[in-house]
Amino acid sequence: MGLDEDFEEIVAKVNKTMNDFLQGDAKELYEASRYLIQAGGKRLRPLVVVLSSKLLGGDIERAILAGSAVEILHNFTLIHDDIMDQDTTRRGIPTVHVKWGIPIAILAGDLLHAKAFQLIGESIRGLDGNTAFKVLDCFSRSVIIVSEGQAMDMEFEKRWDIKETEYIEMIRRKTAQLFACSAYLGGALAGGKEEELGKLFVYGEKMGIAFQIVDDILGITADEKELGKPLYSDIREGKKTILVIKALERANQEQRKLIISGLGSNDPDKLRATAGLLAELSLDYARDLALKYHSEAIDSLSKIVPRSQDALNGLISIADLVIKRRK
Amino acid sequence: MGLDEDFEEIVAKVNKTMNDFLQGDAKELYEASRYLIQAGGKRLRPLVVVLSSKLLGGDIERAILAGSAVEILHNFTLIHDDIMDQDTTRRGIPTVHVKWGIPIAILAGDLLHAKAFQLIGESIRGLDGNTAFKVLDCFSRSVIIVSEGQAMDMEFEKRWDIKETEYIEMIRRKTAQLFACSAYLGGALAGGKEEELGKLFVYGEKMGIAFQIVDDILGITADEKELGKPLYSDIREGKKTILVIKALERANQEQRKLIISGLGSNDPDKLRATAGLLAELSLDYARDLALKYHSEAIDSLSKIVPRSQDALNGLISIADLVIKRRK
Repeated sequence: MGLDEDFEEIVAKVNKTMNDFLQGDAKELYEASRYLIQAGGKRLRPLVVVLSSKLLGGDIERAILAGSAVEILHNFTLIHDDIMDQDTTRRGIPTVHVKWGIPIAILAGDLLHAKAFQLIGESIRGLDGNTAFKVLDCFSRSVIIVSEGQAMDMEFEKRWDIKETEYIEMIRRKTAQLFACSAYLGGALAGGKEEELGKLFVYGEKMGIAFQIVDDILGITADEKELGKPLYSDIREGKKTILVIKALERANQEQRKLIISGLGSNDPDKLRATAGLLAELSLDYARDLALKYHSEAIDSLSKIVPRSQDALNGLISIADLVIKRRK
Repeated sequence: MGLDEDFEEIVAKVNKTMNDFLQGDAKELYEASRYLIQAGGKRLRPLVVVLSSKLLGGDIERAILAGSAVEILHNFTLIHDDIMDQDTTRRGIPTVHVKWGIPIAILAGDLLHAKAFQLIGESIRGLDGNTAFKVLDCFSRSVIIVSEGQAMDMEFEKRWDIKETEYIEMIRRKTAQLFACSAYLGGALAGGKEEELGKLFVYGEKMGIAFQIVDDILGITADEKELGKPLYSDIREGKKTILVIKALERANQEQRKLIISGLGSNDPDKLRATAGLLAELSLDYARDLALKYHSEAIDSLSKIVPRSQDALNGLISIADLVIKRRK
């Protein structure tokens, strides 16, 4: 089977699992909880779970359950983040709180959060206690770390002195941890050795950091329709992306003033001017940085003896996709 | 050891466990997540977990972990509910979103939710897979059911034709499920038989229903200072409490008009008039109903052969407390 067909089959199974699990008699609530998931998404995290499991010779059905849990968890964080960041569009459609109001959006996120844990529970059913504990602990620890990352992200909006190391630590928590956990989980469900799980974790973590850097880049370079959300929203929200941090470091007095006046602004001209300066001063740097993390991810993967060459190729091609994506 | 000292020792251990688990370097976030927990609370749910475990001869330390998990979970739901219901005071202090803003309050709730699962994971560490699955499944299922109950509660605000059976089903999900799960969890951790766990579940569920009915009653009869939140907030929010449902059933044309005009109102005179009518028309009924569920709870408990008479007495006295409480 070719790579694309293999991916499609996994994604179809994950979509079915998620849909089956997100049914209940509180109609509006369940509708709101399925809405963003059904609107699209690349399903990169479940692919990482399933292929990491296959890489170490694991059972696909368990990995599908765990992959669905991770994707549901991811969507819960998106719904709550959109409320916190007051974002109104995602995946080309109104965000959940815009469509249903903040109370239902909070509750839909909470429901997805709990459903994710229920699914993780299903994925470890019947496994030995040690493996089950490892999987559950990694999963709950991840939500904690992601929440900490989101808090750092919001705190950074108020600061002007963010260093690159602080930024990397923030995105390691906010974005990379869930990719790292996805790879780790898949391997753990397959009964992988601690050393192999560590390498899978690093693969996911480095790829996740690359993913967020590319996200920052797409925020000023993407085609708005393809991206599915407004361009420059990071700038409007005053987010301290790697582009902002590096541009502020390299800017002269005048450029610095312009960048700062655009951050947190609602004026389209100012936003465009700031985006232009970020592109000029830091786009190349950010692209190189993403490539560096991408190659570190591949490097970590190459140290594992694969039980399936297909799975190895799949994991490499996901890392490539993360770098080359346009949305 | 006397009952009160026994309770105090459990509560002290639960408080220490929660405090130890709620530490991290995202300072503001962790402070917001500890705030409501440290402001008080009766710790009824952890007491139910620990005493149910002791009743079936279980290990106290495991039950303390699970009890702390339940209490953290409960506080997560309170923080998010207060945002949804726009409540500004709880336990005599400003609610989390009033003090820190909605974004941090959402995130603090999410963090507590994840921490609760981490703690439940700790409580089942090293247990056989079957018991571990039972505990985890009951826990995640509870959050799902509680979310559904909250959705029903919000939907009921828009309807005038709520029947008593619908109300009981709503509070069974929103409030009673977590009490039921607390008793079940404690018993499951002790390795109780399925039949015993079922009886514990019913004890918790019936007590939880009584708890919510008493909550509805206190909303119009309590001393405001003692209660720690504004009187009549249920009426102001248009909640369909058992008092409202029964009063509407018994009211004449004129009384019905008055009650309806008070529900969802901000006018203190209207609120007071509606509260007066509720007291006149349905207070006795609600009190009798709470007593009925209280005695069904005790009844279910009496069918279990206790391994500890102290634990049995403790569980009975918690059910009594639920009925007699003034806040």
